[in-house]
Amino acid sequence: MAEVKTLLFDVFGTCVDWRTSVAREGEAFGRAHHVSGVDWVTFADAWRARYQPQMETVRSGRRPWTTLDALHRESLEAVCREFGIVDVSAADLDDLNRAWHRLDPWPDTVEGLRRLRTKYIVAPNSNGNIALMVNMAKRAGIPWDAILGAETARAYKPMPEAYLNNVALLGLTPREAMMVAAHERDLVAARACGLRTGFVARPLEFGPGGRADDAPQGAWDVVAADFVDLARRLGC
Amino acid sequence: MAEVKTLLFDVFGTCVDWRTSVAREGEAFGRAHHVSGVDWVTFADAWRARYQPQMETVRSGRRPWTTLDALHRESLEAVCREFGIVDVSAADLDDLNRAWHRLDPWPDTVEGLRRLRTKYIVAPNSNGNIALMVNMAKRAGIPWDAILGAETARAYKPMPEAYLNNVALLGLTPREAMMVAAHERDLVAARACGLRTGFVARPLEFGPGGRADDAPQGAWDVVAADFVDLARRLGC
Repeated sequence: MAEVKTLLFDVFGTCVDWRTSVAREGEAFGRAHHVSGVDWVTFADAWRARYQPQMETVRSGRRPWTTLDALHRESLEAVCREFGIVDVSAADLDDLNRAWHRLDPWPDTVEGLRRLRTKYIVAPNSNGNIALMVNMAKRAGIPWDAILGAETARAYKPMPEAYLNNVALLGLTPREAMMVAAHERDLVAARACGLRTGFVARPLEFGPGGRADDAPQGAWDVVAADFVDLARRLGC
Repeated sequence: MAEVKTLLFDVFGTCVDWRTSVAREGEAFGRAHHVSGVDWVTFADAWRARYQPQMETVRSGRRPWTTLDALHRESLEAVCREFGIVDVSAADLDDLNRAWHRLDPWPDTVEGLRRLRTKYIVAPNSNGNIALMVNMAKRAGIPWDAILGAETARAYKPMPEAYLNNVALLGLTPREAMMVAAHERDLVAARACGLRTGFVARPLEFGPGGRADDAPQGAWDVVAADFVDLARRLGC
């Protein structure tokens, strides 16, 4: 662990509570557009359910590089149809699409990163695009040293390039980087590329009783209860 | 100006004093390796003189994308030969090459950016690569919101892509971005792409009596004496 110079973070679920935040943004949208009868938490889950299949269209090579903002926007139209939300202008859908730019961090995220940043280069390694990550960080006060992720790597996790290209952009080797995530699938892929791994439990990502990876199975280099605990375990 | 959401900064010369810093790093290298008789300020100037010709090999398409760290490294070997510096290991040259990662900001840079950041997305738009910019910012406490530049645009300034691709990565239009530089050539190119322009004088970039653009000729949107003055003029 003494070799590690950068901590790369998964963001959706690990740093921010996408489900509660998207539901909140949906509720505001519903009030503004007189949409009734929609359970916005269910709406958030339905939108997120299209996340992996949409990225798979890019990972598989079936379509050229496409940002997550654009994938989210396509999914949003489909989800609106599914929930009977019609007659909304493109500009209003664009604004709702930017709900993903306005996600709230978990209560420990900013403090933990502020501490971790004193010792490590901290950067997102998210499937979110640069504009999304910058706007989110700006609104929430998340203190990144750089904005890395799918758009800088030109590959969506869990493809190896999504880890290896971003480590290389920092001028580092995989052993000098640790991937931090609340999702074991992300850590399995990072470890296969030679990165160190840090697991942080986010038991409420999918709501109370949801399917979060709250009891990690893998032998990760560090396992922490939250970001402040991670900072403490890493001596920050 | 009310439309502007991001300020993109030239870095070498505009944010940091490359000449004094590289000379200081050269002196330390000279002491460590018993190199005498070298004027390290002249050495810094000679190294920098190879900057534009080296980037031109990429801009012209004569070679594929190559980072500034790699271009600096090639130049360094040539400059060492020029100054009669021989028998240095590759690892020691690698370390001297990272002198560009250890440049000191001008005295107003960090305070100015901290104030500008309260209202704008602030990011470098430098020909330096991501690792160089991250390491420099980390050491000097430069508070960027994102690290953009030649490596994210895959083009060296003053090519139009070096401005347009980075504005697009922030999800913005050129009119929503202002390029800030101490070099009129950079601002001419940015303005041709539709960006707003901010000129900050750095009369000592090339030393006392050097060829800095200290009396700007262009009709730039904002002209400031330093970064704190820029913040004041932009209402931060």
